[in-house]
Amino acid sequence: MRQNRTIKGAALEVPEVVVQRLPLYVRALNELTQRGTDTVSSQQLGNKLQMTPAQIRKDLSYFGRFGKQGRGYNVRYLLGELRQILGLERKWNVAVIGVGRLGRAIISYPGFAPEGFNIVAALDADLRQVGQTVAGLIVQPMSELEQAIRQKDISMAIVAVPAAQAQEVADHLVRCNVKAILNYAPVSPKVPEDVKVRAIDPVLALQSMTYYLRRANARVSVPR
Amino acid sequence: MRQNRTIKGAALEVPEVVVQRLPLYVRALNELTQRGTDTVSSQQLGNKLQMTPAQIRKDLSYFGRFGKQGRGYNVRYLLGELRQILGLERKWNVAVIGVGRLGRAIISYPGFAPEGFNIVAALDADLRQVGQTVAGLIVQPMSELEQAIRQKDISMAIVAVPAAQAQEVADHLVRCNVKAILNYAPVSPKVPEDVKVRAIDPVLALQSMTYYLRRANARVSVPR
Repeated sequence: MRQNRTIKGAALEVPEVVVQRLPLYVRALNELTQRGTDTVSSQQLGNKLQMTPAQIRKDLSYFGRFGKQGRGYNVRYLLGELRQILGLERKWNVAVIGVGRLGRAIISYPGFAPEGFNIVAALDADLRQVGQTVAGLIVQPMSELEQAIRQKDISMAIVAVPAAQAQEVADHLVRCNVKAILNYAPVSPKVPEDVKVRAIDPVLALQSMTYYLRRANARVSVPR
Repeated sequence: MRQNRTIKGAALEVPEVVVQRLPLYVRALNELTQRGTDTVSSQQLGNKLQMTPAQIRKDLSYFGRFGKQGRGYNVRYLLGELRQILGLERKWNVAVIGVGRLGRAIISYPGFAPEGFNIVAALDADLRQVGQTVAGLIVQPMSELEQAIRQKDISMAIVAVPAAQAQEVADHLVRCNVKAILNYAPVSPKVPEDVKVRAIDPVLALQSMTYYLRRANARVSVPR
């Protein structure tokens, strides 16, 4: 069993939340390389991400043995390996479904391309949107989804449709063999097990800030 | 020192990433109550969130002693305490800055109000937008920001302006004493230490799915 672990990202079923933490490691390691840091211990990485060193070693152990006992991790090597494990060394083509306000904002978002995510297709069920040009893309009808996915080598979809249409769109994407969906609709569509869905969740982000507001308010409201 | 820990959310400086994990605990505990689960061990909670039991006990220890050795946590009690610690037992008023496509989509998003976040003001620097009605709110000019914040008891802001304006808007919010900013602009504004900024980051979400695509592709490309 121990031996198998050294086969990168293949031997053990890696828990999904561990995979979800890997981009955070990549970001932290990126920062370290930019500062010229050569090696990092699980303790130091833990301080940076506020995780226990044991948790970090456990997460990374799913993918092999990256560090030598007492010597820490080689930052560049670990970063390279994690980028490869996550499939970040190549470009991914993405379709955006739904070109309402949100969809148009997503298509115009300049943060995707530098990270290797190219939005190459825009589709909408509303025929009034079809044929319009959004950031250089001509909006296609949903009837062309399968063809667009094949011709443009699309592997991922960003769903920006109203809640009522999210399940139907997800079903359509699943039929077209799309296995990764970034969902902006405020409902969780049901998909087969081999399809991954991530939700953009602004509520979680707000909830992690009210902690500080509550404390600041408590200080202010102390009677003088 | 140990004693102080029992003073809820006040004694020790809680690391920011720990605070950021609390909403995940709240969500997991919510699910458990909905299934009628009364108690949960740090092991079970760890399985659910794929964290080590030690990490969970460490995170929670910042806020007091919630569980009895060997008996696990009372789900309802822990949920109630965490909600209180996070300030989720009350409602928070929110301003949206920038009513372009994205801002309008955010204002229309139905997921905020049920969680206690009420969008009560919409503002834009573009005078062509001012006076328009978006989801029942009349768009106000930025010159009315301070007044709106005071009159409408606003504690949080959602920033949905282009990258080039994000810093200026953040500065303005800071001057108006807003301490929590949810930033959709693809740049990180600089703010004083006592102001919290969270970014909506679709790239991290995409990066945690390519892991699975890479593996699926690898399987497909095996020569037959």
